Amino acid sequence: MQLQKVICAPDSFKGTLSASEISLRMKEAILQRFPSCNCIALPVADGGEGTAECLLTACGGERICCQVQGPLGEPISAEYVMLSSGDTAVIELAAAAGLPLVGNRKDPSRTTTYGVGELCRDALQKGAKRLFLTLGGSCTNDGGTGIAAALGTRFYRADGTPFLPTGGTLREIASIDTTASDRLLEGVEVTVLCDVDNPLCGERGASAVYAPQKGADPAMVAELDAGLSHLADRLEDIGRPVRTLPGGGAAGGTGAGAVAFLHGTLRSGIETILELLRFDEELKDTDLVFTGEGRFDGQSLSGKVVSGIASHAQKQNVPVIAVVGDIGDPIDEAYTAGVTAVFSTNRIAAPYEQIRHRAGEDISRTMDSILRLLALS
Amino acid sequence: MQLQKVICAPDSFKGTLSASEISLRMKEAILQRFPSCNCIALPVADGGEGTAECLLTACGGERICCQVQGPLGEPISAEYVMLSSGDTAVIELAAAAGLPLVGNRKDPSRTTTYGVGELCRDALQKGAKRLFLTLGGSCTNDGGTGIAAALGTRFYRADGTPFLPTGGTLREIASIDTTASDRLLEGVEVTVLCDVDNPLCGERGASAVYAPQKGADPAMVAELDAGLSHLADRLEDIGRPVRTLPGGGAAGGTGAGAVAFLHGTLRSGIETILELLRFDEELKDTDLVFTGEGRFDGQSLSGKVVSGIASHAQKQNVPVIAVVGDIGDPIDEAYTAGVTAVFSTNRIAAPYEQIRHRAGEDISRTMDSILRLLALS
Repeated sequence: MQLQKVICAPDSFKGTLSASEISLRMKEAILQRFPSCNCIALPVADGGEGTAECLLTACGGERICCQVQGPLGEPISAEYVMLSSGDTAVIELAAAAGLPLVGNRKDPSRTTTYGVGELCRDALQKGAKRLFLTLGGSCTNDGGTGIAAALGTRFYRADGTPFLPTGGTLREIASIDTTASDRLLEGVEVTVLCDVDNPLCGERGASAVYAPQKGADPAMVAELDAGLSHLADRLEDIGRPVRTLPGGGAAGGTGAGAVAFLHGTLRSGIETILELLRFDEELKDTDLVFTGEGRFDGQSLSGKVVSGIASHAQKQNVPVIAVVGDIGDPIDEAYTAGVTAVFSTNRIAAPYEQIRHRAGEDISRTMDSILRLLALS
Repeated sequence: MQLQKVICAPDSFKGTLSASEISLRMKEAILQRFPSCNCIALPVADGGEGTAECLLTACGGERICCQVQGPLGEPISAEYVMLSSGDTAVIELAAAAGLPLVGNRKDPSRTTTYGVGELCRDALQKGAKRLFLTLGGSCTNDGGTGIAAALGTRFYRADGTPFLPTGGTLREIASIDTTASDRLLEGVEVTVLCDVDNPLCGERGASAVYAPQKGADPAMVAELDAGLSHLADRLEDIGRPVRTLPGGGAAGGTGAGAVAFLHGTLRSGIETILELLRFDEELKDTDLVFTGEGRFDGQSLSGKVVSGIASHAQKQNVPVIAVVGDIGDPIDEAYTAGVTAVFSTNRIAAPYEQIRHRAGEDISRTMDSILRLLALS
């Protein structure tokens, strides 16, 4: 096969290698067999972990480190990315409200997204007019009230005292004043990367579906769900209905909160990223795309890097080879969805902990085998 | 790539799948993507376990079951293969003198290859003029004296009494009379499949290198080695020097014994099998060969199926794809030796015991990915 232009667009292999490192290893392997190939390393993320890094690599820019409030109120250092255009910031919710930040002190009734709002405020103060906010991996269930509060929204109890709500105290909100945050966000475009469609509350809501993994027992789940439902009522009071919004339940209700308080738009993570990377334009004249991720499962394709890449490539008839860690079965749907072939990097029968340290070499070697095959014909 | 003729020539994946089953799965996967391909399933063996099965599949014939003497003298049932030509038998030493037959009663001073000789005798009585004897996996150290005895060779003590020597009693041999076995073997061609070059005795001899895994402690190793050395002396007495013969130490000295008593020729297992399979002729007009084995290690290539296949295919410029269980590193030597690309069937990071039951499906799926790639171009 003639390879004149190839794109290497992998996700990270979570826990082992960054998307950048993998894309460079892919590129190196390609150039070894096809030295004159125009080979583009384009690390990708799915809108969760690694999104800021991905856009930083693709667009240039800087990491900005801030002292903000952690999920349990403690001071922490957290980073976000300001892209080189200077008007666009990429903020990962997990940076200031991620589950790893609370260690074994998980308690979604007490945690706040306030620090995430502080990151947003810092970006706005530095001149950002576009915010990209990723929602994956939160330890919170505060409906995004913390973010709103950090941007100026005031929450009052029935007795008129202002307070910072958390998952467990949402029901104490009697009224909401968004005057200050609305002013701060005027002319600012907020895009929220979100690939779930769970609503804010109810059986499929944030509390029922996601709070248990954040440390809630059934009683707390009920309390948290009632809190988010109460928040939805108060938001309706001010003409911002988000109760049934698909994706409103993402990140402990931050999906809904970002729409209500930040006037944000929920969008598919991978679609947004591929747009920012100008992937469709890059695809022109491309002979082949390599992609990959740590675990590929044909049954949960939506919203992931490989499926996003494949669906765009399919429209332009560009074949896609996925080089992945584990392959779940069956993967027939993936083939229908535009993936040409899938190869695992596993080379010996051994558990993950035993082989994770050699992931880089295994990717290079698997790439080499594939390229030897492509060079055959 | 155009695939008009493809050969599927794997070894077995020891402990999981037979070479036949793998070759059929390979063929099935090929025909699914390339329905008009002339696809030849040609299961292979390396001259060890599976050799009789391989030749039976390739040449046709029958399995013949005999009641013979087991390695510790007990009656056992053992099979050999008579090929359809009717004049060629394939006898695996392990069938009547294999290590699994003694279980935890390992004792290379007491075990005998007599039953193997009985299988040979049965084949000769049925008209065989060619015997192929494989040497892998023995529990014996009798220098092949058991085989010889079953074919009529007489061993005498100093006091003139005849006896059946075993590893521990070889030193009692005072004289050897091969008259009867020589007569029985007249006009019979014996080929011994052997891929080690260890001599009969000494530091690299049968006893020092292989007897420990058959249950010998250091004292017994010394006794066994002295026994084989004594046997070499007695064979020199009758003009059959085998002391320094490369491969004489195979299977507890059966390599040497087969040459001395059966007038056999030691030959590389895989080379002999490829010749019997007419592999070189089959290679003509072949676009691609698939091969494979349970564990592929680039550093121990010699005498194995994949390397044998690759070296023959390389001479005719036919590319070879190896589909294997585990891949040892590095494998650069394999590429030099004619292997085009190597793919592991491992699809999830898990230990062998956990994935062995899915080996068949994993082979089919790996083949499918490779073929999807080949169909690309």
